Amino acid sequence: MFAPVYLDHNATTPLDPEVREAMLPFLDARFGNASSRHEYGRQARSAIDDARSRVAAAVGAHPTEVVFTSGGSEANNLFIKGAAARMKPGLAAVSAIEHPCVREPARQLRRLGWQVDEVAVDGDGRIDESAWSALLGERPRLVSVMLANNESGVIQDIARLASGARVAGATMHCDAVQALGKLPLDFRALGVHGLTLSAHKVYGPIGVGALVLDKRVDLEPLIAGGGQERNLRSGTENVAAIVGFGRACELATARLADDAARMAALRDELEAALVALGARIFSRRAERLPGTSFFGLADVDGETLVAKMDRAGFAIASGSACSSADPEPSRTLLAMGVDADSARGAIRVSLGRETTATQVGEFIASFTHTVGRLRNLAAMSA
Amino acid sequence: MFAPVYLDHNATTPLDPEVREAMLPFLDARFGNASSRHEYGRQARSAIDDARSRVAAAVGAHPTEVVFTSGGSEANNLFIKGAAARMKPGLAAVSAIEHPCVREPARQLRRLGWQVDEVAVDGDGRIDESAWSALLGERPRLVSVMLANNESGVIQDIARLASGARVAGATMHCDAVQALGKLPLDFRALGVHGLTLSAHKVYGPIGVGALVLDKRVDLEPLIAGGGQERNLRSGTENVAAIVGFGRACELATARLADDAARMAALRDELEAALVALGARIFSRRAERLPGTSFFGLADVDGETLVAKMDRAGFAIASGSACSSADPEPSRTLLAMGVDADSARGAIRVSLGRETTATQVGEFIASFTHTVGRLRNLAAMSA
Repeated sequence: MFAPVYLDHNATTPLDPEVREAMLPFLDARFGNASSRHEYGRQARSAIDDARSRVAAAVGAHPTEVVFTSGGSEANNLFIKGAAARMKPGLAAVSAIEHPCVREPARQLRRLGWQVDEVAVDGDGRIDESAWSALLGERPRLVSVMLANNESGVIQDIARLASGARVAGATMHCDAVQALGKLPLDFRALGVHGLTLSAHKVYGPIGVGALVLDKRVDLEPLIAGGGQERNLRSGTENVAAIVGFGRACELATARLADDAARMAALRDELEAALVALGARIFSRRAERLPGTSFFGLADVDGETLVAKMDRAGFAIASGSACSSADPEPSRTLLAMGVDADSARGAIRVSLGRETTATQVGEFIASFTHTVGRLRNLAAMSA
Repeated sequence: MFAPVYLDHNATTPLDPEVREAMLPFLDARFGNASSRHEYGRQARSAIDDARSRVAAAVGAHPTEVVFTSGGSEANNLFIKGAAARMKPGLAAVSAIEHPCVREPARQLRRLGWQVDEVAVDGDGRIDESAWSALLGERPRLVSVMLANNESGVIQDIARLASGARVAGATMHCDAVQALGKLPLDFRALGVHGLTLSAHKVYGPIGVGALVLDKRVDLEPLIAGGGQERNLRSGTENVAAIVGFGRACELATARLADDAARMAALRDELEAALVALGARIFSRRAERLPGTSFFGLADVDGETLVAKMDRAGFAIASGSACSSADPEPSRTLLAMGVDADSARGAIRVSLGRETTATQVGEFIASFTHTVGRLRNLAAMSA
């Protein structure tokens, strides 16, 4: 099979072979429904309990605080709509650079009588201090700010923001999908009421995520029914995926320091080459995830470059992968004050655990060659 | 590994080896995010398109009518809450024997100003004709009736019910989770606006289901975000599970006639033995799923029997598997007018594709022996 070099880890990651190994028995003889009171059911239940402890340990939470969902999008929707459903309508706010699966459920609250605001970011993509202070002055009931941005990789100081939000009486949620496995995470130190995680961004399977939830938050279930997950998320538990998530979290913790250091070094090497090509690296002055590079070339169209690199055997992203069917410019960049043309032509390279220095070197050579050819073509047609 | 005889297929089914085979590449080299615009993304997208056609074909729907979800519970919640969100509050009704993942989202509508009624069933577990007529006279906006009951296996005449509901101006949903693969299904002939399917009841993976949706129904998404599934269900598509679901649907269609005939014969053999033991077979006069037997013994406690059979190496269910952590009597039986003691002590045996005549014979022998011993113990202590 043709296997291009994969440099799009913020979109999804390959399944770690150890994760797959852990999952396979549950796609075979251990197929039971965890609610069944017989041997098959008990095996499934015990595997889920074990995985719950592993996921909790990865973020310093108690296992009973982990609510498994079908993924990050569901966990974000569950917290935002579920918490709002148990409150009197008021002010809800999300940052201007949230993933659509935070922004859209927040917008849905308007129909229920909520005012929904977006909190501005500065030119580097960090929450704007004065906008944040102004928001807290308005006493929001519900706030959601992501830990690390999927496009720019910018990391917010969630602990500090959450501390302010708590003082202002707000219930605060944080989408940590892009942060898990790349940064140390501590649910208590972050001080948020809900934290969203996803397995497939951390070499686990697609189809499972978690909402780590402070039990003082009253949530209406998004998926009501049989009463699974402490009645917060009904539906037959996806045992194989949950087991894979648990193993993926364990590996992420064990490998975090090494993976992060190695990816940061490769990213710096990549960015040195990009800068030499005249690229503008977005959010370079902000604290960022180790393996993410988000950039643009003023004179070369990003879409064209991504397509050419695809044919050359390198999988990279233009705009946010999860909504890349959408030809709109990157909202993250627009929120940072980047002009629409640059925001439309941005390119994201996101490295991963299995990315090698050789692959990065090959990418740099191929990318440099491709940019040169496109510039020559442009010069000839000028 | 200790592998008891599995006779609990209405709770979940083992993954068909052909389904697993179809899924494995997507848990390996084909790990891409279907929204990514590069080779990995295109492979994932094309696999989903293919699976969508297979699922649609299994129920005579158009592929664009299939909305993939994380399972049956989500699909039921999506239809009921999503359709209600776009209507003026009015009367919603579900049958008295719906699975909790239909009953509970319907109840959640009360908070939004809806009146929510339950439609009675008769002593055999079929929708009560006069209750149905009375309901339609009240002009409900939203109605949900399951095709086949998970406990009794009773099949409702959905086409006829839906025809009446349409005339009365109602939007009608049907949970067909237990029917898929056991009965021929035709979305158009059923005439409902939404039909819920689940993969793991049909030898496919846990973690994927579908809402087959008449496009004239306006639905608010339950999980909002990146806009996947025609903006009706956001979240990174669970490619491996969707591929497995597609293959499982294809196998279900191919094997339906043979599987159903074989299971019905085994079930009849089982029930003859149960009747000889003095068991009361619930809903025996109604049209039922081929492999489901729901019964009770007046003088032997069902819970005790299920536990003893578990230790003897046979996995069977007491009450509904999906809520069997719940010690409440079977709601299906209570709705049929069965007394609470009998409803609490009911036993469900559900046969499957891989069930052999030998296994059923062994079960009958072991069950007969166990019932005899329990009766002897009771006689001695009397």
